[in-house]
Amino acid sequence: SNMIKVAVVGGEGIGPEVTDQSHRILKWFSARRGIPVALREAQYGLIPYLATGKVLPDDTAEAMEEADAILWGATGGPETTEVPAAARKAGSLLSLRSKYDLYANLRPIVASPALADSAPLKASVLKDVDFIIIRELTSGIYFGEPRGIETLPDGQRRGFNTQQYTTSQVRRVARTAFELARTRKGRVCSVDKANVLETSVLWREEVTALHQAEFSDVELTHLYVDNAAMQIVRAPSQFDVMVTCNIFGDILSDCAAMASGSLGMLPSVSLGPPDRLGRRKALYEPVHGSAPDIAGKGIANPLGSILSVAMMLRITLNRPDDAALLEKAVDTALAAGARTADIAEPGTKRLSTQEMGDAVLNAL
Amino acid sequence: SNMIKVAVVGGEGIGPEVTDQSHRILKWFSARRGIPVALREAQYGLIPYLATGKVLPDDTAEAMEEADAILWGATGGPETTEVPAAARKAGSLLSLRSKYDLYANLRPIVASPALADSAPLKASVLKDVDFIIIRELTSGIYFGEPRGIETLPDGQRRGFNTQQYTTSQVRRVARTAFELARTRKGRVCSVDKANVLETSVLWREEVTALHQAEFSDVELTHLYVDNAAMQIVRAPSQFDVMVTCNIFGDILSDCAAMASGSLGMLPSVSLGPPDRLGRRKALYEPVHGSAPDIAGKGIANPLGSILSVAMMLRITLNRPDDAALLEKAVDTALAAGARTADIAEPGTKRLSTQEMGDAVLNAL
Ligand SMILES: CC(C)[C@H](C(=O)O)[C@@H](O)C(=O)O
Ligand SMILES: CC(C)[C@H](C(=O)O)[C@@H](O)C(=O)O
Repeated sequence: SNMIKVAVVGGEGIGPEVTDQSHRILKWFSARRGIPVALREAQYGLIPYLATGKVLPDDTAEAMEEADAILWGATGGPETTEVPAAARKAGSLLSLRSKYDLYANLRPIVASPALADSAPLKASVLKDVDFIIIRELTSGIYFGEPRGIETLPDGQRRGFNTQQYTTSQVRRVARTAFELARTRKGRVCSVDKANVLETSVLWREEVTALHQAEFSDVELTHLYVDNAAMQIVRAPSQFDVMVTCNIFGDILSDCAAMASGSLGMLPSVSLGPPDRLGRRKALYEPVHGSAPDIAGKGIANPLGSILSVAMMLRITLNRPDDAALLEKAVDTALAAGARTADIAEPGTKRLSTQEMGDAVLNAL
Repeated sequence: SNMIKVAVVGGEGIGPEVTDQSHRILKWFSARRGIPVALREAQYGLIPYLATGKVLPDDTAEAMEEADAILWGATGGPETTEVPAAARKAGSLLSLRSKYDLYANLRPIVASPALADSAPLKASVLKDVDFIIIRELTSGIYFGEPRGIETLPDGQRRGFNTQQYTTSQVRRVARTAFELARTRKGRVCSVDKANVLETSVLWREEVTALHQAEFSDVELTHLYVDNAAMQIVRAPSQFDVMVTCNIFGDILSDCAAMASGSLGMLPSVSLGPPDRLGRRKALYEPVHGSAPDIAGKGIANPLGSILSVAMMLRITLNRPDDAALLEKAVDTALAAGARTADIAEPGTKRLSTQEMGDAVLNAL
C-alpha cells in the first residue's frame, strides 16, 4: 500500500504527555493536508512489563518492526526501578537503535529569536544559529567489545570499554552528513580526537577519502572535540552540519542544547540504512529524557516532540512545505508568548503541555 | 636545601612569549616577597631537536626531573613538522604526563566581571562562576591498551582504543578532588556516563566508596557527562569542584573555557602523587596551545601563564597570600582596561604580550 506506517510509542515519564500533543499535530496534518499515514499506538515500559513481563511487548515490537517511522516519547526513570535490569535492557533504547541499525542520529540546533531572553548565551551569539549535529549511533564506545569490570590479582577492580569504528561505519554516517549538507549550506565539520586516538585517525582518514571520492563540492573541515565544544559555545553560528562519533555526539549535542533555550525544544531523528528506493527507517524523538521529576504534572514542553513531527514531515513523509508550515506555527506560537515552564521568564504565564499543543494547532 | 626548584620551559609557538611574562612575574615574587626558588630555564622543541636530535634534550629532561615545579609554555604547531613523529612522541606532553605520573589536572574556571562583555554567555549566567575541573590525566582512553588500526579479512580497516580505569586510579584523583573541596565550598560533582559505560560504573562506585569512607563531610553529587556539558553552559555557577576522567575532562574544560571570556585566560596545573611530606611534583601551564597562527607576533595573552604562576604560589610554594595578590593584580589590570587581542572589544586598544605583563607588574 502507499500508506506510510507510523508507530506512536509514548513510553515512560513525560514521554506519553508530550507525545499526545505531537500525535494530535500529526493527525492534523494527516486529515487537513491529506498525508496518507497509518498510525498505530503502542505501549512501552512499566505498564506492559507488569502485564507481559516485557517492557517492549510483542505487539509493540511488531508495530515498530513494520513501521516506516516511529514517533517515540521517552524511556527510563524511577517508576521503572520495578523492572529488573535484564528485562529493561532487552527493550532499551540502545538495543532498539542497534536492532534497527539506526546509525545516523540527526539533532538540529536552531536558536529561536523569541527565546533569546531565556537562553544563557547572548542574543548576538545566537544570531543565525541553525546547524545539525549528526551523531553516529550504533557503534563506538557504546557498543564496543570487550567491555566489563574485572578483578585484578591484587584485589583491585578494573573497568574497561572499547571505542571502535570500521571503514564502513564511518563512511555511511559521513555520507549522510555530506548528502544533508548538499540540501543546506554545503558545509560539513567532522569532529574527532585524531591527535590522540587511533579510532579518530581512522575516522578522519575515511571521512576525507569519501569527501575526495564523491563529495568534493561540499566544504569539509575538521575540529578536535575539545575545540568543537568550545566553538559551539563561542560562535555556534559558524556551523552547518557537524558529524561525529557516538560519545562525542552525545556530549556535544547537550553542550549545544542551550543555544536553543531549553533541552525541551530539541527534536531528533535516528535513521537506518537506505533501501533501494532511498527510504530509511526512522525513529523520531525529542532529545530530552523521561524527566521523572515532572512526569504526570502536565507541564512538560511538547515542542521537542512536535518539532520531531516536523522532521518526520520533511524526511519520512517527504513534505518539506508541511514541515516548514509546522516549524512556522511553532515560531508563531512562541512569538505570541506561548511558554511552558522550562522556557518561561520568571513571573510570566506558563502554559500546560496541552495548552502548548493548542497554541501550535491554533497557529496552523 | 630549602630552595624550591622550578624549571621554566617555554617550548614552542606562543609558549616562549607567554612564559617570558610569567617568568618575570615569578622573579618579582622571588625577589620582592622573598620566595626561595631556584629557577632553571630549559629549551623544548624544534631548536633543541635540530641541535641534539631530541625535542626534549637531556639537559631539559634533567631540569624537569629534579624540579619541584615546571612552568611550561606550549608544544606543537607547524614549525615542528620538521620533527619526525617518533622523535616528537618521545618528548610529547602525553609522555611527560605519564613519566611524572601527573594524574590530577586542575583547571580553574573563574569568570572575571571585567570580561563579561566579551564572553558569549550572559553576565547573569557568569555571576559567581568560580569552579575547578579536575581531569584525570594519566589513564583512560588516552593511554589504554590495546589500541591501533587493523585491516579486517574483508579489506576494511578498524580503529580501536581502550577506555580503562582501576580502583586506585579513580580513588587517587577523587581524593585530590575531595581534599580540594574541603579548602573551598565543600562540594564535589563527579561526572561519568555510568548509564552506558562499565568504566563509568566503576568510576562512580569507587568515588562513592571513598566519599563514604573518608569524606562524608563533603557534598558529593554525580552527573552524566552529557548533562554536565549542558549544565556548564546553562548555569556554571552551580559548581565548586568537578572531577572526571581524561577524555571527558578534556572536552568539558574547553566547553567551560568560554565562561572565562577566552581560552587565553585559563591556567592549569597537573599534579603527581604526594610524597611523605605531601609535596607533589607539579607542571603548571596555560590551557591554550602553541597557537602557531599568532606565534612570534607578540600579541598572545600571557594571563593563562601568569595565572598558572598564581596556582604555583598557592600549591607548590605554599604562599596563598601571594597567590591572591597576583590574582588581584590581574583583576586590577583587567578592570583598568588592559586587553590583549583575544579579549578586546572591537575598536578598542590591544596590548602586546609584553605590555600585558607590564600591566600586571604595575598592579602588583
Ligand atoms: C539515555 C542515554 C543512554 C542516551 C545516550 O547517551 O545515547 C541519551 O543521553 C541520549 O542522548 O539519547
Ligand atoms: C594536545 C592534546 C593532546 C591535549 C589533550 O587532549 O590532553 C590538549 O587538548 C589538552 O587539553 O591539554
